[in-house]
Amino acid sequence: MTTVDRTTPAPRIDGRRLLGRLDELATIGAIDGGGCARLALTDDDARGRDLVVSWMRDLGLEVTVDVVGNIVGTWRVGSGRPVMTGSHIDTVRTGGRYDGNLGVLAGLEVIETLMSAGSEPARPLAVAVFTNEEGARFQPDMLGSLVWVGGLAVEEALDTRAIDGARLGDELERIGYQGSLPCPSESPHAFVELHIEQGPVLEVEGFRFGAVTGVQGISWQEVEIEGQSNHAGTTPMNMRRDPAYVAANIAVFLRRLALEMGGNQVCTVGKIDLQPNLVNVVPRSARLTLDVRNTDENLLRVAEARIAAHLAELAATEHVTITTRSLARFEPVEFDEALVEIVERTIAEHGHSGRRLPSGAGHDAQMLARVCPTAMIFTQSHLGISHNPAEHTDPDDLVAGADLLLDVMWKLAHHDFDSTGRPA
Amino acid sequence: MTTVDRTTPAPRIDGRRLLGRLDELATIGAIDGGGCARLALTDDDARGRDLVVSWMRDLGLEVTVDVVGNIVGTWRVGSGRPVMTGSHIDTVRTGGRYDGNLGVLAGLEVIETLMSAGSEPARPLAVAVFTNEEGARFQPDMLGSLVWVGGLAVEEALDTRAIDGARLGDELERIGYQGSLPCPSESPHAFVELHIEQGPVLEVEGFRFGAVTGVQGISWQEVEIEGQSNHAGTTPMNMRRDPAYVAANIAVFLRRLALEMGGNQVCTVGKIDLQPNLVNVVPRSARLTLDVRNTDENLLRVAEARIAAHLAELAATEHVTITTRSLARFEPVEFDEALVEIVERTIAEHGHSGRRLPSGAGHDAQMLARVCPTAMIFTQSHLGISHNPAEHTDPDDLVAGADLLLDVMWKLAHHDFDSTGRPA
Repeated sequence: MTTVDRTTPAPRIDGRRLLGRLDELATIGAIDGGGCARLALTDDDARGRDLVVSWMRDLGLEVTVDVVGNIVGTWRVGSGRPVMTGSHIDTVRTGGRYDGNLGVLAGLEVIETLMSAGSEPARPLAVAVFTNEEGARFQPDMLGSLVWVGGLAVEEALDTRAIDGARLGDELERIGYQGSLPCPSESPHAFVELHIEQGPVLEVEGFRFGAVTGVQGISWQEVEIEGQSNHAGTTPMNMRRDPAYVAANIAVFLRRLALEMGGNQVCTVGKIDLQPNLVNVVPRSARLTLDVRNTDENLLRVAEARIAAHLAELAATEHVTITTRSLARFEPVEFDEALVEIVERTIAEHGHSGRRLPSGAGHDAQMLARVCPTAMIFTQSHLGISHNPAEHTDPDDLVAGADLLLDVMWKLAHHDFDSTGRPA
Repeated sequence: MTTVDRTTPAPRIDGRRLLGRLDELATIGAIDGGGCARLALTDDDARGRDLVVSWMRDLGLEVTVDVVGNIVGTWRVGSGRPVMTGSHIDTVRTGGRYDGNLGVLAGLEVIETLMSAGSEPARPLAVAVFTNEEGARFQPDMLGSLVWVGGLAVEEALDTRAIDGARLGDELERIGYQGSLPCPSESPHAFVELHIEQGPVLEVEGFRFGAVTGVQGISWQEVEIEGQSNHAGTTPMNMRRDPAYVAANIAVFLRRLALEMGGNQVCTVGKIDLQPNLVNVVPRSARLTLDVRNTDENLLRVAEARIAAHLAELAATEHVTITTRSLARFEPVEFDEALVEIVERTIAEHGHSGRRLPSGAGHDAQMLARVCPTAMIFTQSHLGISHNPAEHTDPDDLVAGADLLLDVMWKLAHHDFDSTGRPA
């Protein structure tokens, strides 16, 4: 087969329109400091969905909602399976305004721009809004895209409980986003996602865009420590069975482990809950979460094994009971080499600086990579700040990123992959 | 002056009545596992107070309530200032049934026993129920007895805010325990408090009772750490400003410090709160409490100074802002030597094993020690468990402890202290 990279001159997206939509979406669930709190399937998430769907309908897209609430807007042009883009619009409790939202709204912008320019691609173009990417309200994260590709049974997903106790299926119904389309869905021709880096690498190294080569593997676990509650003044140190100390010891160990392993190994303790959590009581129990990531599955397993060994040792020496529960486990993902190459080449064609890099964060694209050639485009994130109202990307980068997305999607609509995902 | 230790044969208290009252009081605010949750000035505390006051009135005691809610029941016999005993009936959220309650109900038992036996002491006997000893709802702890001896201004005490936001003065009024008697109150002739040890020393060393020589000094502070919230997957370890790590480091440091200093130095981190407390977000802030105690004021200051130095070092190396706030600070207290001697001798006269020991916990008696000769009697605590529903003391020890209290109070009613608190 032949590969056609471009059949018409490239139109450019409307930067003011894109930035305007980002601003408008950010007013929903707005929090102090310019950020957003739109936890998945809350009323604010519903209002955000309504707004995006209204824009899809304004463009005349075919809008579908599936059984776990994933929304897809498709421009039915050309023939064959669509080239898909998309991301999510749910946020963490202290989210920024670009994480996820950029990928969705840039997708709409690509379609509107091509429509306005009268440039019809050879395949349909689709924009997806995946349910519960953040995992801040329901676990696991990336739940919508995981179900979309058949990685999690629909019933299991619907029975997931929120941190506030609500059932995912009930919340979907409550906000009117339990659709009828079954999952897993039909695979697209290819998938490409535009996202802010959410890390400092591009900015620190002076590159404007990243051609994402894959996604770090993620291991989340919850650790529960049961000790002996007691009076803080009267229990000699050597007679304590103190879950707070053990939790602290684990957090300090994780930092040391990550530094020792080096490379892109990262470890985080972001959540600690003590019971009863009082100044003068040695707690009876502690619960904490461990977030451990590496791009190399073997190294990720090494990290997990070293943590398990440390927990076993602590349980013995501190006379506490330690139980762990996996909250999420994703192997590292490698994106499609041909598609990464197209992204890399397009960045260069547009005259921007760019480099290949792995993603430290999980993204819906890693789920899509199970079923079709997939890659991502990263824009710089100022200071790498993300999951924070101070999250910021230069508006010029947001606009230029959407132009890259347009060009890559156009190329993919005219690019054939062989059955192994390699270019034909 | 002459010292008369006993003028009548010793009557014995009614053990079944004492245990019955302990059981009855424990039904108020009862929690799973046989414990109590009667946080100060809650509805349950009010019901507990009503019950104790009804027992005081049944005995014909003169009942007074002062401006911060301290209740005193006095048997107006003999002459001069009363010999006082007492403790508290408020508990922590996961409290046991003896901490505080034993001291109050044993005091009533002493009076009822002497009344029934027709044995009138040479001085009035009084039983106090002090407000908010635990500090679990309002800080500082031992607030009622502190105001009682003039160590804290009434207005400041009334303006104290609960962890739930309520004002102490308003809560006193709401539950009907804002009395008219001014504070500070007139000093008693002497004060002796019966209490469970709340530590494992007596049991481990095989002694049944303790003659308490004083109370450890207490330093409570709240530490707030401000860092940089960020995405847990994308921020390289060496670029983090992670308050959770810093909080964990402090907790681990406190353990090491206590072990290094040895003696009776204890350090506890019982409360940690992260914001936003999510699995995949490096927190923006952490707040934790430090509970540091020693019987030696100089060593307590050494511990405080070493902690301050460590916090300063962490702030610099981890690029976080650390601020501290003192929640409570009490110097170590030494009890009256003559009174400790009387307690020690009485334990021996009753044929029990006993030893002198300092208290690791704070008690109302340490406030009373500012204004009159004071000491305490400790009973064994099984496994040292306290502030926990599993708190347990053998019923025989509870009864024998009340008999010791009776005998010591009788002796004190016939014992004169000179102006320096030494026996005349």
